[in-house]
Amino acid sequence: MGEYSLFGKFTVKDGERDALVEILLEATQSMKNVEECTHYHVHVSDDDPNAVYVYEVWKNADAHQASLALESTQILIQRAKPIIAGIERISTLQPRGGKGL
Amino acid sequence: MGEYSLFGKFTVKDGERDALVEILLEATQSMKNVEECTHYHVHVSDDDPNAVYVYEVWKNADAHQASLALESTQILIQRAKPIIAGIERISTLQPRGGKGL
Repeated sequence: MGEYSLFGKFTVKDGERDALVEILLEATQSMKNVEECTHYHVHVSDDDPNAVYVYEVWKNADAHQASLALESTQILIQRAKPIIAGIERISTLQPRGGKGL
Repeated sequence: MGEYSLFGKFTVKDGERDALVEILLEATQSMKNVEECTHYHVHVSDDDPNAVYVYEVWKNADAHQASLALESTQILIQRAKPIIAGIERISTLQPRGGKGL
């Protein structure tokens, strides 16, 4: 079970939500080879048409930090930058257990 | 992939965090037989010693609603009530995909 989990929100420019979802889902493809990342879930919400939420579970904080330096991540960040209006870290957490974890 | 996901926060009375974590982890045991619930993750946070966070992914909203009426859930709710000071639904979401989903 990972020791470090995150819940965050991207706010996109009008009409760009699905474009960001696609970029983030591409990111999850590159995560397939990153063992330290066990969960990377992309969500939208009826409550906010310009929001994309990401829930992540990592082995530890260092593994998460290291992933940001990966070339694949950097490429996706550059692609996403033009359509992102805001980034918010909602919660930084420590998993204690559960179903599907 | 489930179509309905939730991220919420329980605030407990001082010193009761681990007691609530245990009750919620018991709830995840009873979720093992509930196919419509694919993820029920219990977290704590260094940011708030009296908070317990739950991340859930369900087949749909009806399945989640129905689970609240289960006897096992009702028993756990009664046990948890005395130590809970607040309940907050942070986000109601729709999963779009990702690793481990």
